[in-house]
Amino acid sequence: MSASPRFSLPSLLFWLAISFAPGLTGIAFKPDAWYRRLIKPDWNPPAWVFAPTWTFLYILIGVAVYRVARRDSPHTPAALSWFFVQLVLNALWTPLFFGLHRPDLALICVVALWFAIVGTMRAFTRVNAAAGALLAPYLLWVSFATALNAAIWHLNR
Amino acid sequence: MSASPRFSLPSLLFWLAISFAPGLTGIAFKPDAWYRRLIKPDWNPPAWVFAPTWTFLYILIGVAVYRVARRDSPHTPAALSWFFVQLVLNALWTPLFFGLHRPDLALICVVALWFAIVGTMRAFTRVNAAAGALLAPYLLWVSFATALNAAIWHLNR
Repeated sequence: MSASPRFSLPSLLFWLAISFAPGLTGIAFKPDAWYRRLIKPDWNPPAWVFAPTWTFLYILIGVAVYRVARRDSPHTPAALSWFFVQLVLNALWTPLFFGLHRPDLALICVVALWFAIVGTMRAFTRVNAAAGALLAPYLLWVSFATALNAAIWHLNR
Repeated sequence: MSASPRFSLPSLLFWLAISFAPGLTGIAFKPDAWYRRLIKPDWNPPAWVFAPTWTFLYILIGVAVYRVARRDSPHTPAALSWFFVQLVLNALWTPLFFGLHRPDLALICVVALWFAIVGTMRAFTRVNAAAGALLAPYLLWVSFATALNAAIWHLNR
């Protein structure tokens, strides 16, 4: 653990922007007629829940990776690699599900994402304990999203 | 097949920029001491080969997706979804290999990328035959890259 680095607004904004990037896939791929016709479990949240939830989670992720990137630890490069892996898997889910209409491939993707978040939390914690802890709500939500994706896949096979 | 749409330079530049985006991971994750120590097969190309090869391939990919995006076919949305899936898998490989130093996970990624390119070529061909054919060098190179990744994984287990 190194001393707390000085606050940098440009660096924080940079990492927030990077963290929000996978959310842009939600602009390109929107729920369509196929999605509305899918059989959903009765615990499927209403559609309006997802945008504020992801906004909140992307902020936490951005603050967490900012804390990691600002610290000059020998564990920082591995932690940033894990961050990019989860970022890319997060961006992959939307084109698989809403683009290709493939809940099966999306399920494989979200399971891989779950493991990548665990890897990111472990790697972040080695650099800064708070940064790892900030990802806990993200892991919880993706656990729920994995169950939801699995249920939708199962109900519509 | 619809009539040839009018040429649009802004649209071509837009799709070229999107197609090059995964190449940005090569700026963040560079070959390091770990990579230099890896045992490589004797048919491993010299390092200078990769940048011009990928530049050439990203140009072909950008021209291909531009041709697809400009055509108002019922198959265009599925074709663009496949395009984004291969794009994201392409961006995932570098942080897995050069960031996390995991040739095993990178191999899983590049195999998934190979299948995503086949899916993209099939979907592109439905919209425009030339767009599908433009991806043939990309599939060839990723076939070679898969063999190379598998060899490096095997030699360094």
